[in-house]
Amino acid sequence: MGEILVGIDLGGTNVKVGCFDSALKLIDKASAATEADMGPEAVVERIGRTTDNLLAINNLPVDSLAAAGIGAPGPARLDEGIIIASPNMPLFKNVPLRKMLSQRLHAPVVLENDANAACWGEFVLGAGKDINNMVFFTLGTGIGGGIITDDKLVHGSADNAAELGHIIIYPDGRKCACGQRGCVEAYASADSTARRAVEAIEAGAESSLKRVLDEKGRITSKDVYEHLAAGDELAKQITDGTAKALGLVCINMLHSTEPGRIVFAGGMIAAGDVLLNRIKDFFDEQIWSLKKETVEITFATLGEDAGIIGAAALAKKAKDERRM
Amino acid sequence: MGEILVGIDLGGTNVKVGCFDSALKLIDKASAATEADMGPEAVVERIGRTTDNLLAINNLPVDSLAAAGIGAPGPARLDEGIIIASPNMPLFKNVPLRKMLSQRLHAPVVLENDANAACWGEFVLGAGKDINNMVFFTLGTGIGGGIITDDKLVHGSADNAAELGHIIIYPDGRKCACGQRGCVEAYASADSTARRAVEAIEAGAESSLKRVLDEKGRITSKDVYEHLAAGDELAKQITDGTAKALGLVCINMLHSTEPGRIVFAGGMIAAGDVLLNRIKDFFDEQIWSLKKETVEITFATLGEDAGIIGAAALAKKAKDERRM
Repeated sequence: MGEILVGIDLGGTNVKVGCFDSALKLIDKASAATEADMGPEAVVERIGRTTDNLLAINNLPVDSLAAAGIGAPGPARLDEGIIIASPNMPLFKNVPLRKMLSQRLHAPVVLENDANAACWGEFVLGAGKDINNMVFFTLGTGIGGGIITDDKLVHGSADNAAELGHIIIYPDGRKCACGQRGCVEAYASADSTARRAVEAIEAGAESSLKRVLDEKGRITSKDVYEHLAAGDELAKQITDGTAKALGLVCINMLHSTEPGRIVFAGGMIAAGDVLLNRIKDFFDEQIWSLKKETVEITFATLGEDAGIIGAAALAKKAKDERRM
Repeated sequence: MGEILVGIDLGGTNVKVGCFDSALKLIDKASAATEADMGPEAVVERIGRTTDNLLAINNLPVDSLAAAGIGAPGPARLDEGIIIASPNMPLFKNVPLRKMLSQRLHAPVVLENDANAACWGEFVLGAGKDINNMVFFTLGTGIGGGIITDDKLVHGSADNAAELGHIIIYPDGRKCACGQRGCVEAYASADSTARRAVEAIEAGAESSLKRVLDEKGRITSKDVYEHLAAGDELAKQITDGTAKALGLVCINMLHSTEPGRIVFAGGMIAAGDVLLNRIKDFFDEQIWSLKKETVEITFATLGEDAGIIGAAALAKKAKDERRM
């Protein structure tokens, strides 16, 4: 048994694999199409081959692998290593992913929720490495979350804690894909941000984004931020809607687990300081005056590697604590 | 050093003291006026005398006291045992309460936030004794909270976690005493429930509560529930407003730390099943359809003793873990 750690970030479209030394230094990484429609066995085999290749091209023998961690989407029973279901991988129902992957890799595996794994990566080596209490949001197609209290991931009573995208901020508000109304995800995810822009244009709002919609038939959150930078008024209003929703959920999380830092990750943070500063503005405007709050609101620092780093770090932790 | 544990529940008006055997069985309890306007030294002396008397009338020698716990209101630095400030005790500013009390009682003392202490009491011996993850609300003048994850109280980055009354459920909504708008406390505390009834009557609503307001010059939440039981339509609307706010905050806490049980305590739970069932109704109506949730929403079972039980249990825990 060697000292190499592998971190895997399983997404509905792509799966990323990273190999790390025992100090969690990235040696190399690779990515492959998940091809989730081929079923769990095929996906596990693809992860296996990607890992084998990664070890081989770095001259690492197969038995150098000490342990692996995998972050996967959807509800799971983490202790049992089972994926219950996954919205973007319909064939993954009650899949014993940990056991399957452990047999394929000939190494112990730890299973974690994908947002939690990325949260742990940022906590250990990124935006949260110097604190003990953190809240983490990924702003992508949806909004994922992670909570760390006293240096530990909060898993909750059934491993589904930190579904922070589904905190309701506007009761009876916009319909969310989850069935609730007024979720923060229905306002502030990349998809919802773009959708609110489309709805406003379709309702007659003036905007330079109208040409994008006419030409491409769609608008992305990236379009919104590009037109914001160019001074478009609608893009500003849409961004403010996103930032207010995120400022509100920061307040609510502060009053819940009181993180020392709140970290935003995901594609949408490419918008940069213009988004971050507006989130802070709305936080400051709406927070209580009972006492001065010092929570820091920041962007993640590890980029797309947070998931593989976190998964590898969780494997290392489980191994160090002799839980695998 | 004996085996007796003392639990103290310090309020702005009264202070309650209970003495317990080493198995946390209540031996006897007493209550005294806090007289907070006499200052911290006088309050500590009153707690000391109340404790002395309680031990004496139960034939327990002074040196039978093993440890004491105290739950106190307002922001604190728990590790240092210091009360930073307390809204109802203006003279309590940066008071080293733990040290003062320890010197007076000649025993080690542990300091905790009052809502957290009551939460811990319910968790150890009350409504949460068979679970590992719990969220707790006290519905009184304001709304206090407590969060337990994996059998531990969540304290946050600066000992001010679980200020659950100040979770914003209606952005830009009713003004809260804390300076925010739309806090759950501004809708669903005993005071806010009564105030919403008064406002509705003053705005011209028909209600049997109008006579109460005319005769007494005020309405309490107790009045609202009595008139609800008698079939008053406004009392029903006001109760629904309280229940919807609490149902929303239950959803938000479920998506945060995912408790197995959510427990409501405080004077207002005297309203009984009519309130509890409406909270559950609104939770069921507004919760996502992504998966079936099994969180239980219940009332506390220890009544007014939760605070002294929790404080004594925290003293026992600190002693058992050799932290005092």
